[in-house]
Amino acid sequence: MKLNIRSFSAAQSGFRAELDALLAWDSVSDAGVQKSVENIVSTVRANGDKALIEFTNQFDRRTVQHSSELELSRADLEAAAKRIDPSVLEAIQKAAERVRLYHERQMDGQRSWSYTESDGTVLGQQVVPLDRVGVYVPGGKAAYPSSVLMNVIPAHVSGVSEIIMVVPTPDGDVNDIVMAAAFVAGVTRVFTVGGAQAVAALAYGTETIPKVDKIVGPGNIYVATAKRMVFGAVGIDMIAGPSEILVVCDGKTDPNWIAMDLFSQAEHDEDAQSILISPDAGFIEKVKSAMETLIEDMSRKDIIKASLEGRGAFIHVSDMEEAVEIANIVAAEHLELSIESPEDWLPKIRHAGAIFMGRHTPEALGDYCAGPNHVLPTSGTARFSSPLGVYDFQKRSSLINCSPEGASELAKIASPLARGESLEAHAVSAEYRIKD
Amino acid sequence: MKLNIRSFSAAQSGFRAELDALLAWDSVSDAGVQKSVENIVSTVRANGDKALIEFTNQFDRRTVQHSSELELSRADLEAAAKRIDPSVLEAIQKAAERVRLYHERQMDGQRSWSYTESDGTVLGQQVVPLDRVGVYVPGGKAAYPSSVLMNVIPAHVSGVSEIIMVVPTPDGDVNDIVMAAAFVAGVTRVFTVGGAQAVAALAYGTETIPKVDKIVGPGNIYVATAKRMVFGAVGIDMIAGPSEILVVCDGKTDPNWIAMDLFSQAEHDEDAQSILISPDAGFIEKVKSAMETLIEDMSRKDIIKASLEGRGAFIHVSDMEEAVEIANIVAAEHLELSIESPEDWLPKIRHAGAIFMGRHTPEALGDYCAGPNHVLPTSGTARFSSPLGVYDFQKRSSLINCSPEGASELAKIASPLARGESLEAHAVSAEYRIKD
Repeated sequence: MKLNIRSFSAAQSGFRAELDALLAWDSVSDAGVQKSVENIVSTVRANGDKALIEFTNQFDRRTVQHSSELELSRADLEAAAKRIDPSVLEAIQKAAERVRLYHERQMDGQRSWSYTESDGTVLGQQVVPLDRVGVYVPGGKAAYPSSVLMNVIPAHVSGVSEIIMVVPTPDGDVNDIVMAAAFVAGVTRVFTVGGAQAVAALAYGTETIPKVDKIVGPGNIYVATAKRMVFGAVGIDMIAGPSEILVVCDGKTDPNWIAMDLFSQAEHDEDAQSILISPDAGFIEKVKSAMETLIEDMSRKDIIKASLEGRGAFIHVSDMEEAVEIANIVAAEHLELSIESPEDWLPKIRHAGAIFMGRHTPEALGDYCAGPNHVLPTSGTARFSSPLGVYDFQKRSSLINCSPEGASELAKIASPLARGESLEAHAVSAEYRIKD
Repeated sequence: MKLNIRSFSAAQSGFRAELDALLAWDSVSDAGVQKSVENIVSTVRANGDKALIEFTNQFDRRTVQHSSELELSRADLEAAAKRIDPSVLEAIQKAAERVRLYHERQMDGQRSWSYTESDGTVLGQQVVPLDRVGVYVPGGKAAYPSSVLMNVIPAHVSGVSEIIMVVPTPDGDVNDIVMAAAFVAGVTRVFTVGGAQAVAALAYGTETIPKVDKIVGPGNIYVATAKRMVFGAVGIDMIAGPSEILVVCDGKTDPNWIAMDLFSQAEHDEDAQSILISPDAGFIEKVKSAMETLIEDMSRKDIIKASLEGRGAFIHVSDMEEAVEIANIVAAEHLELSIESPEDWLPKIRHAGAIFMGRHTPEALGDYCAGPNHVLPTSGTARFSSPLGVYDFQKRSSLINCSPEGASELAKIASPLARGESLEAHAVSAEYRIKD
């Protein structure tokens, strides 16, 4: 199948403008969606379970009469785990174990600390897990068990005591693999609600759904809009844009491998973005040719074609230095360094959600089971944000415990500063602690 | 002066509802402000310097002709530092040094790490500072040099290479103490712009103002609305509500000290919240009486009175257990434990921005110079967020470097999971790495 994919040379005039246009992504803020979500959120906030049941029956075509029907028990989850193909259950268990191990390592830097100054004053920071977290899991056709593991396990490892999962079950269809993943990951409670109504229920609480401290997990535009709306009442994770991969290849990896790595991003949806950068023009041609052959057999070939032709690109560069420079401009969610000695280039990579190093590290391994989280910053936000991690399920309190001597010395600094800001009560409050 | 401050007993019926009503704070989202900010942001984004100069001349009553007039040089800052009272400059220097030391300690947990598995696969996380950060500093009457130190120093300590400060100078008035603080803290460049137009300039860049990766710092409702609007294009810190203090006292601290500690919060503005909890009803009366005497001499007594009568409260509890329970519900920005052996109670405190321990640790010391940051989560958001810290100026990239053996084993886990999610290209991409 012929594929019309953009092709650039970094040397061509106007390349930077072309690159910026390629990367541009403005998340649509549709006034209709906004209004509809505002209505759903305020109604659930005001009327609790009654509104939640009505919206759920309406949007998910269900016939729930009583709120108790919205909850799945631990026995329900266990039964789902027993129903699925044992090889899939085993894969879920192995993936969960690896994700858990990685996030346990991540805990190392995330502990309370303090130090004592010579006059006895103690300063530090207390680090504690959040009390209760809500995990949104999409239902229907885009049901991803890996997403359950990636959102629930870091919360669990960080010590969150209650993990509340919500998942819509349109027409009452429960996805067994998703439930099995919830069973393995160790969620506390599961409710079969979704959409903006589920986000509102988690943010404000209803008679049945407990109010949480933070909501994480992916969702459609209604879910994303609702999360943005309740932010402040609860914490939220990032609002994700379309998924992206940037593959930097020196031209020495099997072109079929690179073609399939690019497909693995493109198959997510039409807006996904796959870009290949190489200093080897002939290799780019080989990958293109491999793509045109391989696409014929792909079950999601229409999505792959639409994604590659709409947002994909090949970029020819003069050398690896230039490739890395462009990678830092792109700040990709997934950066694959399919090159010799990728560790040599690592210190120059400043912006990327996750870095897949070497020819044997395709993004797909990271998506499921390598261990690091697959919830990553998209649309260039890797310039300032990080993968989901245990730190997203903790918060810190500063600790200050002044000795009488320490307070007296500090008060002498604070007092003139407070007076400089015309805050007299601050100054007097400090001065009371000055020793005669 | 008589003060009408709410007084509760935790034992009275309906106390929890009263407490919730006392704490309720919905930040006003005024449609007029929203529309005005939308216009400013989109105009600056489209027209750059030209729009920035026009809005600055309009809102700050200035007569700027050329964008070069918007920048203050390092020499300008140094001159301001020489103009101010030497004792204030010395206090700024000492405070800066202590804030720097604390944030250097905070860096300990924030380093890159990795580990190697038995088959040679390397997993880890690379931690790097942001490239460029914008610090918003309010101008005019609410000009706080301490805010410059608290926002700039953690960025500096975390390794941010460019720190761009913006500060409005209404009528062209430059605040020397603020400029001296900028000089001491080590900002890279300073521009005399403010409001929504400054936020837009930092988020999207103009010919003169460099585009940053994250914007931090407090501001009025226009600034807060603009920050919320540009979030996604850049990172932002929290959107702060009114400042609050919760003092828990066992009744053995000098009532004048506690009265003044409560004043030091109340004097910020009419919406600030000061609450005292004590198991000693007689002590609460003594503090009230001290307040009625001390307020007479306070220069900001009208603000203090309005704040205490509008949002302040005394809460009588049966014992310290109950006091701590209420403190966890309030999740205060500032929690003062003016009690014997505060460290014994620390493990029970789950939610607070900063914890001031003991009778010699008034909030005012933390506001200026103890070392920990004074930018703290407000309005109960301490349930899920943290003080501003070096971690806010860094971001992480996951690292995955599979050995051929490791990749082969991981691919056997990833493949069935990918097929379970109907993502065939993911499965094939993984399967290519399985060794025969």
